[in-house]
Amino acid sequence: MSQATPDSHGHPIASAVADHGEGGEAPDPALVEELVRANHILFDQGVVDAFGHVSVRHDKRPDRFLLARNMAPGSVTTDDIIEYDLDGNPVNARGRKVYLERFIHGELYRSRPDVVAVVHSHSHSIVPLSVVKGAKLRALFHMAGFIGQDAPVFEIRDAGGDGTDLLISDNALGRALAEKFVAADIVLMRGHGSTVVADSIPLAVYRAVYAELNARYQLEASHLGEITYLTEAEGRACVDRVEGQVQRPWDLWKSQAAQRRGGS
Amino acid sequence: MSQATPDSHGHPIASAVADHGEGGEAPDPALVEELVRANHILFDQGVVDAFGHVSVRHDKRPDRFLLARNMAPGSVTTDDIIEYDLDGNPVNARGRKVYLERFIHGELYRSRPDVVAVVHSHSHSIVPLSVVKGAKLRALFHMAGFIGQDAPVFEIRDAGGDGTDLLISDNALGRALAEKFVAADIVLMRGHGSTVVADSIPLAVYRAVYAELNARYQLEASHLGEITYLTEAEGRACVDRVEGQVQRPWDLWKSQAAQRRGGS
Amino acid sequence: MSQATPDSHGHPIASAVADHGEGGEAPDPALVEELVRANHILFDQGVVDAFGHVSVRHDKRPDRFLLARNMAPGSVTTDDIIEYDLDGNPVNARGRKVYLERFIHGELYRSRPDVVAVVHSHSHSIVPLSVVKGAKLRALFHMAGFIGQDAPVFEIRDAGGDGTDLLISDNALGRALAEKFVAADIVLMRGHGSTVVADSIPLAVYRAVYAELNARYQLEASHLGEITYLTEAEGRACVDRVEGQVQRPWDLWKSQAAQRRGGS
Amino acid sequence: MSQATPDSHGHPIASAVADHGEGGEAPDPALVEELVRANHILFDQGVVDAFGHVSVRHDKRPDRFLLARNMAPGSVTTDDIIEYDLDGNPVNARGRKVYLERFIHGELYRSRPDVVAVVHSHSHSIVPLSVVKGAKLRALFHMAGFIGQDAPVFEIRDAGGDGTDLLISDNALGRALAEKFVAADIVLMRGHGSTVVADSIPLAVYRAVYAELNARYQLEASHLGEITYLTEAEGRACVDRVEGQVQRPWDLWKSQAAQRRGGS
Repeated sequence: MSQATPDSHGHPIASAVADHGEGGEAPDPALVEELVRANHILFDQGVVDAFGHVSVRHDKRPDRFLLARNMAPGSVTTDDIIEYDLDGNPVNARGRKVYLERFIHGELYRSRPDVVAVVHSHSHSIVPLSVVKGAKLRALFHMAGFIGQDAPVFEIRDAGGDGTDLLISDNALGRALAEKFVAADIVLMRGHGSTVVADSIPLAVYRAVYAELNARYQLEASHLGEITYLTEAEGRACVDRVEGQVQRPWDLWKSQAAQRRGGS
Repeated sequence: MSQATPDSHGHPIASAVADHGEGGEAPDPALVEELVRANHILFDQGVVDAFGHVSVRHDKRPDRFLLARNMAPGSVTTDDIIEYDLDGNPVNARGRKVYLERFIHGELYRSRPDVVAVVHSHSHSIVPLSVVKGAKLRALFHMAGFIGQDAPVFEIRDAGGDGTDLLISDNALGRALAEKFVAADIVLMRGHGSTVVADSIPLAVYRAVYAELNARYQLEASHLGEITYLTEAEGRACVDRVEGQVQRPWDLWKSQAAQRRGGS
Repeated sequence: MSQATPDSHGHPIASAVADHGEGGEAPDPALVEELVRANHILFDQGVVDAFGHVSVRHDKRPDRFLLARNMAPGSVTTDDIIEYDLDGNPVNARGRKVYLERFIHGELYRSRPDVVAVVHSHSHSIVPLSVVKGAKLRALFHMAGFIGQDAPVFEIRDAGGDGTDLLISDNALGRALAEKFVAADIVLMRGHGSTVVADSIPLAVYRAVYAELNARYQLEASHLGEITYLTEAEGRACVDRVEGQVQRPWDLWKSQAAQRRGGS
Repeated sequence: MSQATPDSHGHPIASAVADHGEGGEAPDPALVEELVRANHILFDQGVVDAFGHVSVRHDKRPDRFLLARNMAPGSVTTDDIIEYDLDGNPVNARGRKVYLERFIHGELYRSRPDVVAVVHSHSHSIVPLSVVKGAKLRALFHMAGFIGQDAPVFEIRDAGGDGTDLLISDNALGRALAEKFVAADIVLMRGHGSTVVADSIPLAVYRAVYAELNARYQLEASHLGEITYLTEAEGRACVDRVEGQVQRPWDLWKSQAAQRRGGS
């Protein structure tokens, strides 16, 4: 039976799907575990603070995704993971509060069938870059080839007018954001942060970490003079080769996250 | 019986009220506990070092407020909390030294009946912004809508001449500072720091944390070019919606603070 | 018998030498231990993250060098150290994955007989400096005299065209990089990082740490105005005298690294 | 009997005084303890790394001072404290290596009878400010009034020519540096760092910490526009009042330092 779920303001959400987690296959527990770790790592690496979130597409149902309940990522456990349909309706919230911006995830999984994981964050060098008129995030070092020649900036005023709260708080805004991802794996959001996608959780986390570093280096280098960015061909070659090393940082980050939490 | 209380220079303070904590209701112990936590969180988040302070209005007597004795915020316990009247006279100091700048708090609680909590700090990006001629702190991201279009800068020379120690060390200076808060919830203090107000302790702490981040991003972005700030309507919408999420960082910060101090 | 070793992409490497560690003397265990510590220290000091590596020339066979298997430096143990010939062929990999950029080390040991240790990293202030057209790293304080008047920048496009992955992934690229070291002990690599050499492990680590600081100070100072750099004579005098103090930071870093890992 | 003491290069030092610690009163053990703590605090606060040092004038013999042996400050114990005469000759080194730059301390205690403690460091924002032509450190916030209107910059080329190692490695250079302190309590040293003096250990440490912060804020603010610095009168008032609060940070730093070292 469908059950009304409060959003984080306590308003009930009309849920189009049964909110019980039945009627579908359960996701691979290893995938849920990996999602929990990704939450911890993003916090430990300073990509998210109490805000920001990471999701993964359901491994058995491509029309579903997994995302933590409304809480700080650094403290997420497997019990906090909720399943959603692509409209952002929770399937098994059971009264747990949900993120206001779950529509980022649903609309991206809908429009980009290749995407397996999504990270949304407000990391420290991305935000300033997002608000400078004419500035654009662009790949300048080999760890961040995926950024490409000109990461799109999502201006919410184009889709929602100039009086929004900047949040992607419904499906229409989610779709407008997703449109920017046609030829990009990262999109900056003006006055807000960024969203990155990848074909695995470790790679999405890697990209969120190194997008922040690329932005930081770009802020610092642009004071000094004109920057030599990666060429398109260099960027593609870096994606092919350097991202193939993703297991190395992932193993490190996992072991650091476990250590900080008294785990193995 | 009234008892002379030394200020932190050892000078006795003429106390207009009985210094014993009687003759009034005790504040809710949960409020005192929340104030202690706020002290720890502000230190852990790098908003205060050995200097800076946070107060809360007495929950039963709106003409009283609670503030730690003269000490580093990160080490405050419930035994260190002193009750003051709005003139900044300690009610129950019992020989404990008091902050030189308690007048910030008293005069703000007097002039702004809506204010429940006050944070005064010298955080790292606020101070440089406070000394640049013509610069103004302005909301540029969704976490800091409360800053608005133009945070006032308090120039102590206007009220105290050009030979002060920059401290708000009496009621007249406190009143001059409070006047800047007529249409603002944060005021920068030139060559000194800032003061923020809110209707709860968690929100005042939240605002102090994100004001620092907004200032930092503004310092970084302004090197690169012209900034797109939040519109007035965006700022208001962010206050309405994003600040409604304040429990999320508060829960995180509380648990981090407890962990660092061996608590639960 | 020669054994095919996969590189980190799983491709077998044609190995020109017997992959068993025999047929030669074992390196001094104290040297291997020092190399392990150098890995930890570089991580702890923020010079490397999951990427970057440090090697040492074999103390008994100058045509061999020691380098960790493909892994994050902060977790390296003595069991992870592999011996290589100067062509970058592992002698005793026994199935362990090797670094894509081992050719940096081999070609430097070949072309510079005085070099005993090599650090390759992407530290935070080196990368931005490496991409600014016309910028050059130059010694500005007494800890970094070894940088000299104009650290060369290696532009991989000159050797490999404008579509590489920026990695030094074969001997030809390794030789091209090594050529830049004729009159320099540090070379910046555009869009990538830097490589430093020295006549001991502690000194190579010291130089990697203080090159990063020199780059950071240079980024900050160059905003303000023209910089007074060290003269050539000052730089040489600093190398002579300040680098003679290398045992002091080395002892500190070793003890910190041991403490963080629960060691003695 | 006088005993030759090696400096940190292993060269024996001709010692003008008996190297045994006799023939004079022992310093107050509490003073030695305070000096040890100052070493730890300066490291914990990031003012010194493996380099930099702090000394105190002998409380019973104004012609002597106390300084650690040549080692990293963060690890100093009471057993590492050596007594020196004002020429920088160790009185009781007993074979322990001494700092190359002990002459900074001796010449300052000689020329400034009011000085009780001296900190020499290379902190992160001081070094870049020291190398910018025409730049000057100047007090911009209330915590750093002691800096005054124009902190002198010591250019070692004036005293030692343009081929020195930048170190204050003899009495002549020490005297040249001390001359800059006639009307100043902090002096920047081009391409090297700074030295600060005060009438107590806690205050010297406080000044080293807040000089670094003032320099950092100055670097950041000067990008944005013209800075409103403290007036002379404001600076003096801040010294009078704010520095009177020095016990507050000192207590905090002491307790943090003890905690990090497993102490009480």
